[in-house]
Amino acid sequence: MSDYRPTPEDRFSFGLWTVGWRGHNTFGEAVRPVLDPVDAVHSLAALGAHGITFHDDDLVAPGSDAAARDTVVKRFTAALAETGLTVPMVTTNLFSDPVFRDGGFTSNSRDVRRYALRKVVRTIDLAAELGARTFVCWGGMDGAETEAGKDDAAALDRLREAFDVLCGYVLDKGYDLRFAIEPKPNEPRGDILLPTVGHALAFINQLERPEMVGVNPEVGHEQMAGLNFAHGIAQALWQGKLFHIDLNGQRGIKYDQDLRFGAGDVKEAFFLVDLLESSGYDGSLHFDFKPPRTEDMSGVWESARGCMRNYLILKEKAAAFRADPDVQEALAASRVAELARPTLDPGENLKDLLAEEIDLAEVGERGYHFERLDQLAVEHLLGVR
Amino acid sequence: MSDYRPTPEDRFSFGLWTVGWRGHNTFGEAVRPVLDPVDAVHSLAALGAHGITFHDDDLVAPGSDAAARDTVVKRFTAALAETGLTVPMVTTNLFSDPVFRDGGFTSNSRDVRRYALRKVVRTIDLAAELGARTFVCWGGMDGAETEAGKDDAAALDRLREAFDVLCGYVLDKGYDLRFAIEPKPNEPRGDILLPTVGHALAFINQLERPEMVGVNPEVGHEQMAGLNFAHGIAQALWQGKLFHIDLNGQRGIKYDQDLRFGAGDVKEAFFLVDLLESSGYDGSLHFDFKPPRTEDMSGVWESARGCMRNYLILKEKAAAFRADPDVQEALAASRVAELARPTLDPGENLKDLLAEEIDLAEVGERGYHFERLDQLAVEHLLGVR
Amino acid sequence: MSDYRPTPEDRFSFGLWTVGWRGHNTFGEAVRPVLDPVDAVHSLAALGAHGITFHDDDLVAPGSDAAARDTVVKRFTAALAETGLTVPMVTTNLFSDPVFRDGGFTSNSRDVRRYALRKVVRTIDLAAELGARTFVCWGGMDGAETEAGKDDAAALDRLREAFDVLCGYVLDKGYDLRFAIEPKPNEPRGDILLPTVGHALAFINQLERPEMVGVNPEVGHEQMAGLNFAHGIAQALWQGKLFHIDLNGQRGIKYDQDLRFGAGDVKEAFFLVDLLESSGYDGSLHFDFKPPRTEDMSGVWESARGCMRNYLILKEKAAAFRADPDVQEALAASRVAELARPTLDPGENLKDLLAEEIDLAEVGERGYHFERLDQLAVEHLLGVR
Amino acid sequence: MSDYRPTPEDRFSFGLWTVGWRGHNTFGEAVRPVLDPVDAVHSLAALGAHGITFHDDDLVAPGSDAAARDTVVKRFTAALAETGLTVPMVTTNLFSDPVFRDGGFTSNSRDVRRYALRKVVRTIDLAAELGARTFVCWGGMDGAETEAGKDDAAALDRLREAFDVLCGYVLDKGYDLRFAIEPKPNEPRGDILLPTVGHALAFINQLERPEMVGVNPEVGHEQMAGLNFAHGIAQALWQGKLFHIDLNGQRGIKYDQDLRFGAGDVKEAFFLVDLLESSGYDGSLHFDFKPPRTEDMSGVWESARGCMRNYLILKEKAAAFRADPDVQEALAASRVAELARPTLDPGENLKDLLAEEIDLAEVGERGYHFERLDQLAVEHLLGVR
Repeated sequence: MSDYRPTPEDRFSFGLWTVGWRGHNTFGEAVRPVLDPVDAVHSLAALGAHGITFHDDDLVAPGSDAAARDTVVKRFTAALAETGLTVPMVTTNLFSDPVFRDGGFTSNSRDVRRYALRKVVRTIDLAAELGARTFVCWGGMDGAETEAGKDDAAALDRLREAFDVLCGYVLDKGYDLRFAIEPKPNEPRGDILLPTVGHALAFINQLERPEMVGVNPEVGHEQMAGLNFAHGIAQALWQGKLFHIDLNGQRGIKYDQDLRFGAGDVKEAFFLVDLLESSGYDGSLHFDFKPPRTEDMSGVWESARGCMRNYLILKEKAAAFRADPDVQEALAASRVAELARPTLDPGENLKDLLAEEIDLAEVGERGYHFERLDQLAVEHLLGVR
Repeated sequence: MSDYRPTPEDRFSFGLWTVGWRGHNTFGEAVRPVLDPVDAVHSLAALGAHGITFHDDDLVAPGSDAAARDTVVKRFTAALAETGLTVPMVTTNLFSDPVFRDGGFTSNSRDVRRYALRKVVRTIDLAAELGARTFVCWGGMDGAETEAGKDDAAALDRLREAFDVLCGYVLDKGYDLRFAIEPKPNEPRGDILLPTVGHALAFINQLERPEMVGVNPEVGHEQMAGLNFAHGIAQALWQGKLFHIDLNGQRGIKYDQDLRFGAGDVKEAFFLVDLLESSGYDGSLHFDFKPPRTEDMSGVWESARGCMRNYLILKEKAAAFRADPDVQEALAASRVAELARPTLDPGENLKDLLAEEIDLAEVGERGYHFERLDQLAVEHLLGVR
Repeated sequence: MSDYRPTPEDRFSFGLWTVGWRGHNTFGEAVRPVLDPVDAVHSLAALGAHGITFHDDDLVAPGSDAAARDTVVKRFTAALAETGLTVPMVTTNLFSDPVFRDGGFTSNSRDVRRYALRKVVRTIDLAAELGARTFVCWGGMDGAETEAGKDDAAALDRLREAFDVLCGYVLDKGYDLRFAIEPKPNEPRGDILLPTVGHALAFINQLERPEMVGVNPEVGHEQMAGLNFAHGIAQALWQGKLFHIDLNGQRGIKYDQDLRFGAGDVKEAFFLVDLLESSGYDGSLHFDFKPPRTEDMSGVWESARGCMRNYLILKEKAAAFRADPDVQEALAASRVAELARPTLDPGENLKDLLAEEIDLAEVGERGYHFERLDQLAVEHLLGVR
Repeated sequence: MSDYRPTPEDRFSFGLWTVGWRGHNTFGEAVRPVLDPVDAVHSLAALGAHGITFHDDDLVAPGSDAAARDTVVKRFTAALAETGLTVPMVTTNLFSDPVFRDGGFTSNSRDVRRYALRKVVRTIDLAAELGARTFVCWGGMDGAETEAGKDDAAALDRLREAFDVLCGYVLDKGYDLRFAIEPKPNEPRGDILLPTVGHALAFINQLERPEMVGVNPEVGHEQMAGLNFAHGIAQALWQGKLFHIDLNGQRGIKYDQDLRFGAGDVKEAFFLVDLLESSGYDGSLHFDFKPPRTEDMSGVWESARGCMRNYLILKEKAAAFRADPDVQEALAASRVAELARPTLDPGENLKDLLAEEIDLAEVGERGYHFERLDQLAVEHLLGVR
């Protein structure tokens, strides 16, 4: 049995805002001290991560002047160099400041939208400077509590405008950077624009340069809509759009829990890892979680360690599941591979198809043996096979 | 005050399976007698509907021979002619028969997939014969209870194959018919492929002839995922893909209730009608509901009448809301129209934008007055303005 | 048509923390200035409220010394006297401070539990001093993210201990004060102890002095579990335990929205008001909402005004609904009153009952005409009758 | 490693309607043949179950005359004798027949309520005849789609009347039988009376003989309201009311899935088994699930086998979790046992408590180390410790 210790080859990364979350929410005050980004770099490197990510404001305190910013970035860069940690992704905070109370790219206030674009452009420069290849956009404040207050068609126009402008900027600059939209159904807004992976994928097709934009799905966000995360990822992969992924945990439809990966729906986590590992996805495996307020800093690192450890455990299990001859036999009994065969023969025309007959009674009796197959998956998950 | 009596000009239609639903479910037996389709035509026409729709099996009992089928269709067509009722949409039942227990277009069984295609092709012929312009596809059995049992990429390939084949057939035949995909997150499968409007819109972009395929969103289906229906419809409209719509009611995230339109989330229904009426949508307004099992046939017709009546009531309210000078002032105070103005000036480059400054403190204090606007909407909804 | 202006006779009250909410949440900073409690008193009185309520910390800043506390209370009391506003209810903040990160009465830390009891006892004294008759206890932090971390039986023991001690204290002091437990399913904890009205009612029966403790249900809290609020209130009333009520709005199962009353599920709000007004409930009608972060202070007061206005509008509608002869006829057709007749005759024994026969076929055909009845309710709600 | 083969000592039982479910639902027809109860007895015995349960109509087809009934019961009893299988629980079908379309004990129709009582009394006689000790009552049709149609206070009165009458009957007859109420939030009714374990526990306290009535919680039913099942069971145990339990699986808030035990939220299942095994609960462990429609009869038995197997696997894991010294250390670090110590010392008065002080800053920094504890639980669940 492996000891499940991550190494940089495992491509795990963490947001600075995750281990650095101080614990404030609607009902409670901060419970933990400020975490110095440099300390975060050292601690994450020591735990075996390969990368660290951030919102602009996580790294450089809002309101910092150029000198202060440079000092911060220099210290941070030095820590990266020292530890070998990379910055695979960067994002912009378009939600905390009161100016974003009605959104960033789709605020009803044009001056706010312009400011949001500026803030992103500057963060893109920083991202490029630090070698990030993915730029995530979470428009968490781009939504509404009342349908009357938001002209959705205009909002989608503005969102498209923003991505077209930003793609143009990246092309102009020659940056090697792609965008990844992170969908979420609600919270902090009552309803958020582009609520699911599906809506984001559909939106991307309307852009000037759809090839530059993909999705950054987050486990808990889809599960907050009761959607099956693995199925959503499968569609994103099928459309070639899984540019980045946020791994965490959620226990059902409720507020955004941001539990550590593996602590939510563990069966779904198993099928997710199974899918990611077989899909050829080679991007960063990014944990976007919030260590519960009950934890002190030792618990924060324990929680971070658990995220990676659970991924590695599930990865081992998924491999064992796929290699198990009983599973292979069960997959065959369930006709899983038969779905990969086209329904029509090559060149077959409909006339032949229409002439064919089916014995409804006989075919209706056919069982698919999914219970056996799922039980095998559960037993691999539980480690009893 | 209007008396809210529908006329064919209101473009209301009903599924034969709605008023004809006998009330069987997982826990209970049928409670109502079989409804003759001809009687349905006469009753709906008398109530003021313009159209009736059906699954193939609703009209022609499965297993009927050609002669029986012709008799049924002839009687039905005669009733249509007599009443002036139209058939704006037709669909295929790919779920009731045991052969579809693992799906239609994406069953793991290739013979079932071939049968499903045949069944749809034959229904398309009938649809064309009856003058339908929209062909709805609800793949309710295309899903899974265990992720292990379904290869999602293959399933999406097969789904694409099915639509490509069917679009080709319609083109070959020269039918004036478009397809509308009806998404649903779950039930009767644990998770269904293309669970939301967003996923369906995204999928359509991968087809050979995306222009022939749109969506048929159903109020309750999106609400079963906790999604805001009006926002989903807005995105479908923005992408030019609202080909058909299923109106009904749902009270939160639970089993598929199929309540009469207006009996679920009535505020959402108001904003939906407001959106549809201002959008230029000119398709059929189709009610896909199930009169509760508590009702006898008199209650069924009462329920159908209520669907249409509620739409007309809300339509009147939406018009009054938009015409109210207080509302117009409130919309302006909320800067709603400002979102329609592009964020960048025509031809403006980013250099100008980047040079601009914002007074965060001042802009952060700006209120958006959505509460006043929403309260005006509520008061229009409640009829006290 | 009434102008729906509240007066103190309408018994509306507001939490100081509602209109005073500054807008901080997990994702965003405060957007509004501090509201002086004295200003809150004056503004609410001007709007027509009869009462104001508070958590200890809302009124007296944590850490205040006795002199500072006395000054604050004196100013507040003077404002109450000046305006005639009352303090019908008081509650304790056992959630914001980091010490409560694992709960108040049920923290795993005994010193925290002891502190929580002290904090409540002191607030009880203040409540009595200000003439409050109801003391609400919301144990929002009394829960868990992992089942392993909380011994539920011990937690329930400690919760019982706390209420037994506090009831004893109130009796000793001779205060005219009753407790009301406020249930909530989750947020800020993953799962909260006593998640619904039902669980709280069941718990109360285990107390030493159950007659001193009732419930304070909140609209949104029950709806966060997908439960029908009116049915829950009906059971609380049936058990004689509706000691207080928190009115607000919620749009489905998601994070705690705390919308203004009437802005969520408006149909449910109608049936709730219908029930409250016919039930003889004569306590305070307390609004526990959070004006959205999009609002400045003018929007806050607009939102508060809307809460009361919507209650009065719905109250008028409920009265009209009950008085409508068509509704009365529909209620009779639905056999609603028949349910009040005992199933057995007075003194009837089972032998007679067992000898009786039923014609299943005939009775099975009986319709209940609820669709007509519900449509009448909807039309009263929409103001078109 | 055990082979997880159940024996009667494990006390597993199955409803006849579970393995016998033919697969009909709102959208689909039956997919499996009728299962002879005698065959069910033999198959379940062979699988290692100790008991079989049924609704009256599962065993004796509705409309059977006395002779037919006797024949059926005789055959069934013979099979029980032959196999040693017991009948630990019996229940009544008050939902399938159209007469129950508005409920059983709380139908608005008094003749239906009387029939429901008769039907239950007769089933009680059969239950006693077969040696059952628990009588489950699931009032799935006792609810409403419109609040206007149901007088909740009257409904609760009638429900109380029913239980009072039935308890009286059992006492008169001298049967050794207790009742267990099975709560459910919705489906097949829009909202069901007594929607959660909490509401049922609260209701029981209002009965004449509360000691004769407990609850029969079902995993999926509580999870359909987003409630944590283990916490609900803990409260039922704390109140001495866990008379019976229905084990199955559910994947989030949606329609009633009735998956096999262990196939839903497996982490919750682990904590549930951990709780049951440490609680002293010694009743039957009853599986109330529905083998998916994709299964033929071989899949049905595979599914039944999986239910038991998963329980035994989790039981082994729970024991290992509790025995692990690392877990014991982690529990101590999380102060879990400290919650069992009363908050006040024996005989301590409030004066002492009030004199005590707390260092808020210091205690506020205290971490609870739940992440480590939960990670240990996850690793035991996954079998990597």
